[in-house]
Amino acid sequence: MASLQEYLRENRQAFLEKWFEALRIPSVSAESEHKPDIRRMADWLAGTLGGIGFDARLIETETNPLVFARSPEVPGKPTVLIYGHYDVQPVDPVGQWRTPPFEPTIADGKVFCRGADDDKGQSLTHVFAVMSLLAAGGRLPLNVKFILEGEEEIGSTALSAFLEKAENRDLLRADVILVSDTDKPGADQPGITYGLRGVVGYELTLTGPNRDLHSGLYGGSVRNPAQALCAMLSDVLGSDGKIQIPGFYDDVLPLSETERAELAKRPFDEAEALEAIGLDASFGESEYTVVERRGARPSFDINGLTSGYQGEGGKTIIPAQASAKFTFRLVPNQEPEKITRALEEFFRARLPEGIRMNLEFQHGAGGMVIPLESPYIQAAARGLASVYGKAPLFLRDGGSIPIVTKVKDRLGADLILAGFGLEEDGIHSPNEFFTLRDFFLGIEASAAILTELGTVGDK
Amino acid sequence: MASLQEYLRENRQAFLEKWFEALRIPSVSAESEHKPDIRRMADWLAGTLGGIGFDARLIETETNPLVFARSPEVPGKPTVLIYGHYDVQPVDPVGQWRTPPFEPTIADGKVFCRGADDDKGQSLTHVFAVMSLLAAGGRLPLNVKFILEGEEEIGSTALSAFLEKAENRDLLRADVILVSDTDKPGADQPGITYGLRGVVGYELTLTGPNRDLHSGLYGGSVRNPAQALCAMLSDVLGSDGKIQIPGFYDDVLPLSETERAELAKRPFDEAEALEAIGLDASFGESEYTVVERRGARPSFDINGLTSGYQGEGGKTIIPAQASAKFTFRLVPNQEPEKITRALEEFFRARLPEGIRMNLEFQHGAGGMVIPLESPYIQAAARGLASVYGKAPLFLRDGGSIPIVTKVKDRLGADLILAGFGLEEDGIHSPNEFFTLRDFFLGIEASAAILTELGTVGDK
Repeated sequence: MASLQEYLRENRQAFLEKWFEALRIPSVSAESEHKPDIRRMADWLAGTLGGIGFDARLIETETNPLVFARSPEVPGKPTVLIYGHYDVQPVDPVGQWRTPPFEPTIADGKVFCRGADDDKGQSLTHVFAVMSLLAAGGRLPLNVKFILEGEEEIGSTALSAFLEKAENRDLLRADVILVSDTDKPGADQPGITYGLRGVVGYELTLTGPNRDLHSGLYGGSVRNPAQALCAMLSDVLGSDGKIQIPGFYDDVLPLSETERAELAKRPFDEAEALEAIGLDASFGESEYTVVERRGARPSFDINGLTSGYQGEGGKTIIPAQASAKFTFRLVPNQEPEKITRALEEFFRARLPEGIRMNLEFQHGAGGMVIPLESPYIQAAARGLASVYGKAPLFLRDGGSIPIVTKVKDRLGADLILAGFGLEEDGIHSPNEFFTLRDFFLGIEASAAILTELGTVGDK
Repeated sequence: MASLQEYLRENRQAFLEKWFEALRIPSVSAESEHKPDIRRMADWLAGTLGGIGFDARLIETETNPLVFARSPEVPGKPTVLIYGHYDVQPVDPVGQWRTPPFEPTIADGKVFCRGADDDKGQSLTHVFAVMSLLAAGGRLPLNVKFILEGEEEIGSTALSAFLEKAENRDLLRADVILVSDTDKPGADQPGITYGLRGVVGYELTLTGPNRDLHSGLYGGSVRNPAQALCAMLSDVLGSDGKIQIPGFYDDVLPLSETERAELAKRPFDEAEALEAIGLDASFGESEYTVVERRGARPSFDINGLTSGYQGEGGKTIIPAQASAKFTFRLVPNQEPEKITRALEEFFRARLPEGIRMNLEFQHGAGGMVIPLESPYIQAAARGLASVYGKAPLFLRDGGSIPIVTKVKDRLGADLILAGFGLEEDGIHSPNEFFTLRDFFLGIEASAAILTELGTVGDK
């Protein structure tokens, strides 16, 4: 491994430059104006992987292209499928960025840019690890496939559809799936995420009068859609943090005492965590710890509200329409379809006269818990321990990577979720960053994981 | 009067052209980018009034200029002060306009344009009436002053401050004030509005975390400001249409049976009125008629909601902030200051942990009811009857013209609120219009009112 270490050290600047090239492409999947950037980003990835000897290509879909690449064959060794996504979240509120959102800027040992962590930074650690292993050893320790999609932030439609065909599943077939799209518990504390929450997202639009009305002429005689929206949404969540939709918790698996004990191992300073986000109080179900609430309990959040006049000053109207985007995080055993039916019924029962409603289902996926017995998980844990000097913690993560659940289910392979970034990196927020240290350690950790995975079995 | 009629008939095209010149100036007071248009509009008015022999000038203020003009003296005759406003509402949602909002477009006998009715169209009827009386008779039937402001839609700050000085009140001093900024009950049914609701407007901003958070990583452990906003706002109004703020109704004067009988005279077809705004149900206090709810009872309306992600698709965040603009319509005897105190207390009591609130008072004015005994009111009623062939109805109007209450109070003069437009003109909405018929009848009605006012007393 000495020459691998040398290669990693000597190529830091080269990795940085490649990473920055990728970060400068504003591949926002939620905004159609960025369609050309999505393609540029996919081309860049296929070019990069092709450049190191992978058989790399774009797979066209009805929406954004998939990037697929496979290494030269390494006979007798297992196959790992590395999943990542090259699309990023929108940047607004753009005014809150201290540096241009798509110009990677180094400050305080951090690289600030949309996608710096989620998920360009994390995905590229694997690309650079593979590059280093090839350069240093002449060959890889196992067969490597990459599947990189451009729609993770908007529901993974294309990859999801792709997985429905048997021949596509054969193409992606692997013994183990490796994903870095989660956090590690601390700068020097690696983790393997064994549980993920699911997510289901909606947009509720309420329509009242056929146009904005003068609130003086009509006020008091017409149901205000913004008022109706507030009333309907405020009913969803109790002040005790419980979701009030009948049947919502029916399928939630209770947390075992063993599992609670495991989760309690994660170092977590609540006061410090609150201070980091500028709050003096947390919220939620008091019978669960904050770590449990975030990772192992369902939740409800309004993501956006839109109605009427939002400009400077005021406008004395009854708005014709009001809408909200919102999501529920789900835990294993909850089914998005069932939640949708219950929600529709819940809102219908509260819909006031004079208001029409449209509940648009945007995306959904169940949560999952991964069995920890797999030899690949144990191998990955050894790899992480060798780089960070500490055994990884086994975690449940609150974020959802719906497609990952599906890839795992469809391919029937073991799954390793090992993140190299930190919670404070501010993914999905203005001023997202990835520390240089975490980035370089991530490349090293990926190389160590791949090396250990190559030792499993005797295929 | 024959030559007046002739002049009115022959100058229709000229009136239209002048009116359209004014409509093309986008004098939106709520948006600072339109500052130059505000000034252009004020200059245009002073120029137009100066052009017919008035002593016309701009009065500079800390905000938008006032336009003041007085006719050559008509000895022994009373003085009327005509109030109007030259600013208009914003045009958004701009996508809902079928014609360019600031290009007057004639269709179906209507002129579509922002400000076509409110209040450029209505104000200009008086300017053209005065122009016609001068041209036809060589002199006016009474002394006429104009005060035209550019901030009615945003709270009349400048005129309000102007009225505080005794010398300014002397400048505006009049026996009667004439205002056309309300509706008439029907195309051929004139009205004099004797009651106006007050209004008080606020913006409530709730702040949670110091940045938008990932709803997967934090959901269930952090209070969502958008959720808190919905809960706090939904508490303001009961499903019975009653405002739930303690003490809110304490100062509301009960409606007398006589007054209810007077209001019931207004022709009003509820089904037809609902159909016009695309609704199948009305809303509000069931013990009051729709006419009473709109004109003589207080109301609460959310005017706008803003939070988090409002773009295409979704964004899985807990927004850092959520805000709402909202107004209460008040009735006589309710005091804005008292409402503000009660509201602040109401919200404070509901503010959840982990959320900070800012309640910004934007503008406020009490409601009013005008005594009907004045000889000027009777004179105006005769003028209206002579043009429309029907005696005017006496009305209470739901809209607020806060400044009008103040002008009346500060000058101690009688007040005539006689509107020439119709409710369906869609003021404050996309596709605002004024019918050509109402516009030309308005000029004629103004001339008739001014003529009748000139016969009052023997000053």
